[in-house]
Amino acid sequence: MLEQLKKEVFQANLDLPKQGLVKYTWGNVSAIDRKSGLFVIKPSGVDYETMRENDMVVVDLDGNIVEGKLNPSSDTDTHAVLYRYYTEIGGIAHTHSTWATIWAQAGLDVPAMGTTHADTFYGSVPCARFLTEEEIDRGYETETGNVIIETFEERDLDILAVPGILLHGHGPFTWGKDAKSAVMNSVVLDEVAKTNLFARGLNHFAEELPQRILDKHYLRKHGENAYYGQE
Amino acid sequence: MLEQLKKEVFQANLDLPKQGLVKYTWGNVSAIDRKSGLFVIKPSGVDYETMRENDMVVVDLDGNIVEGKLNPSSDTDTHAVLYRYYTEIGGIAHTHSTWATIWAQAGLDVPAMGTTHADTFYGSVPCARFLTEEEIDRGYETETGNVIIETFEERDLDILAVPGILLHGHGPFTWGKDAKSAVMNSVVLDEVAKTNLFARGLNHFAEELPQRILDKHYLRKHGENAYYGQE
Amino acid sequence: MLEQLKKEVFQANLDLPKQGLVKYTWGNVSAIDRKSGLFVIKPSGVDYETMRENDMVVVDLDGNIVEGKLNPSSDTDTHAVLYRYYTEIGGIAHTHSTWATIWAQAGLDVPAMGTTHADTFYGSVPCARFLTEEEIDRGYETETGNVIIETFEERDLDILAVPGILLHGHGPFTWGKDAKSAVMNSVVLDEVAKTNLFARGLNHFAEELPQRILDKHYLRKHGENAYYGQE
Amino acid sequence: MLEQLKKEVFQANLDLPKQGLVKYTWGNVSAIDRKSGLFVIKPSGVDYETMRENDMVVVDLDGNIVEGKLNPSSDTDTHAVLYRYYTEIGGIAHTHSTWATIWAQAGLDVPAMGTTHADTFYGSVPCARFLTEEEIDRGYETETGNVIIETFEERDLDILAVPGILLHGHGPFTWGKDAKSAVMNSVVLDEVAKTNLFARGLNHFAEELPQRILDKHYLRKHGENAYYGQE
Repeated sequence: MLEQLKKEVFQANLDLPKQGLVKYTWGNVSAIDRKSGLFVIKPSGVDYETMRENDMVVVDLDGNIVEGKLNPSSDTDTHAVLYRYYTEIGGIAHTHSTWATIWAQAGLDVPAMGTTHADTFYGSVPCARFLTEEEIDRGYETETGNVIIETFEERDLDILAVPGILLHGHGPFTWGKDAKSAVMNSVVLDEVAKTNLFARGLNHFAEELPQRILDKHYLRKHGENAYYGQE
Repeated sequence: MLEQLKKEVFQANLDLPKQGLVKYTWGNVSAIDRKSGLFVIKPSGVDYETMRENDMVVVDLDGNIVEGKLNPSSDTDTHAVLYRYYTEIGGIAHTHSTWATIWAQAGLDVPAMGTTHADTFYGSVPCARFLTEEEIDRGYETETGNVIIETFEERDLDILAVPGILLHGHGPFTWGKDAKSAVMNSVVLDEVAKTNLFARGLNHFAEELPQRILDKHYLRKHGENAYYGQE
Repeated sequence: MLEQLKKEVFQANLDLPKQGLVKYTWGNVSAIDRKSGLFVIKPSGVDYETMRENDMVVVDLDGNIVEGKLNPSSDTDTHAVLYRYYTEIGGIAHTHSTWATIWAQAGLDVPAMGTTHADTFYGSVPCARFLTEEEIDRGYETETGNVIIETFEERDLDILAVPGILLHGHGPFTWGKDAKSAVMNSVVLDEVAKTNLFARGLNHFAEELPQRILDKHYLRKHGENAYYGQE
Repeated sequence: MLEQLKKEVFQANLDLPKQGLVKYTWGNVSAIDRKSGLFVIKPSGVDYETMRENDMVVVDLDGNIVEGKLNPSSDTDTHAVLYRYYTEIGGIAHTHSTWATIWAQAGLDVPAMGTTHADTFYGSVPCARFLTEEEIDRGYETETGNVIIETFEERDLDILAVPGILLHGHGPFTWGKDAKSAVMNSVVLDEVAKTNLFARGLNHFAEELPQRILDKHYLRKHGENAYYGQE
């Protein structure tokens, strides 16, 4: 069942430690098959070194296990909320990667200060608010998804143009057209979180990238007239 | 004698350089067999690259060698004090890991600023005071153990809910149900020491995690109703 | 066609991830054959892990493809401008390496604060200005090359004595007698960007290297009476 | 000729990149045979990846080549000065390792702020002054050795109790009883340079280690009654 998707999700999960984004089991990646409305996600708390392709769990959009012997990631409900609301996304990644987590703990948006940022994120990556006591009691993981949506709605952001968010005091969620690009966006976010932190420390007056440079870099890779790469 | 425990302690010691927590011989891990009251610990000053499973030393709770041709870690008496006082712990790790050591040298408790912290430590990780001249003369390693106990008693902390401490000017000790989890707690402590340092540097007003988030994350992994992982 | 040069450019491109200067496809190296006036450059957006020697693209000094099935790097026109203007350079490298990018985002020149710097760069590495709206519209990559030339002209710098520059908000370009030395200069620039940042942070009054030390180190490696190495 | 010493020096040189202390050819290690008064040193500017045991150069205490087809390290005269003056040292290492170099560029002594430091260095590691114009003209490498001696004499330091120094604007020299321990002392110096920098940044009031802890740690490893390790 969904063997190709399991393979992709498995490989994308292995990319997390390979790219230095997770230690132990602190991360998870999923991808959805829009035809069946089912998504594949990493099992909860399973070691990356012993995990096999076959351990991937298939769940429906309510988070119910459809296939798999293991419990899915404890963050499964957050993934489900995002897949339900944003039909244009195909893969989601969550990590506690060091530098993105630092901005999440600082409770700050990551501003677009360089072209590495502009190549992937069309503007600041927002930091979502803490959940309230009521929201935690109602369902921590589901409400985490809802707060992500709330943040994008309030700021009127395009979910594909800004494919990531920080959860205050927690860490990043990123997404993309598939599992692989979701992970790639996590790598970019962690890297720009690092360069921005030190650039501001080096020059407290360092400013955001001028709009014209942001436009140029984002659009040469993502716009209609994109000319980066082989397509 | 205690062959399975030796294997576990040996592997846990090898995890220290693998996880980037030690250089050369700057660390040691032990684990106890509560039935016999004996514990297994790394030999002193032996290179991780040439160390064999059989080099592990078996000692009793007074720190006397019961089996083994090599001297046990020079920190053996600190381990013995902790095993005697806290019958609920099964493994102990000591390192000079970079970021935890930085907080130890700064003489500061590591506050709970993120969920990576809350997943493992239920509140701040304390920094113990320096030993006095008298304590050093009486027995440096034994008194180091006593100062750890003093710190947990004075602050009324649960040894399992906060499985680690910093020694001022020195570095971390962590513990757990076995050798492996003691090392894992060292990895977490080093990582949160790093993220907290830079989060505070990035935003001097960055606050500790709200109590409700700390509770949620700690309890979804450790409470009676824990639902993280496969158990 | 230019098989030896393709080999060198391919190897130099692989050195970028090996030296920790790039993630994914965020970098490119080229080298020129002055006899034919053609240069070899990395294809655009191709993964370092699957890229083969044969994927290298041969282009002329106007940036037109002469041989190769893939699109050349999107930065090809910047390379072309530099090769046309500076006939003494044989290889060019561009990366988003972490520490050089931090200075680029801070919009600051990298001062010569140590002998690691002086061994390669004879004075500060300049940071070029942002391009204007008009320049971006006229041709982003070509005008990026022109701004590099403008910076060196205005400051009256020797292109071989200072073999690198930062682009504000973007990252470094470096060059040298061939592809390999261009990459080596990227490694040096990233390292001194890191040490200078922390040296200034540690001692806000830390000064630039005295002129006599800068002279000594640069000239013992590069002057007429150089005595470093085996030549 | 001195085959065993060549082997040791070769291995110790390879340890430099392995321990992350050097990139390319930015470092050199030597060791002396006191009977013959000859020392073995890395050749100048030779790549660590292609270097062979047989490339090591044998020189006398005036820095003249006694055996070897390659030029010895350009820093050979500095090594010679130290071997001539300090008959108790057997090996010397020089690197541009990141964190020690940062302190060298900041022009500051590295204070003893933790037990990792105290286990190896009995007090602050000094930073030597810049050379004067006259000294550079007279002989840069020889005078570098003389300034190291001057620093230890003026401060009345024991060369074995403080086995390392920083050269202002340059980087560290360390030494020991042989090539291996010289490299080990470089590793320690780089690590404490890192932890001290961030400890002071985290807590501007962080103090040096109390004398009683410095004594205890240094002496349990190096004093007459040392009890660390297997000897």
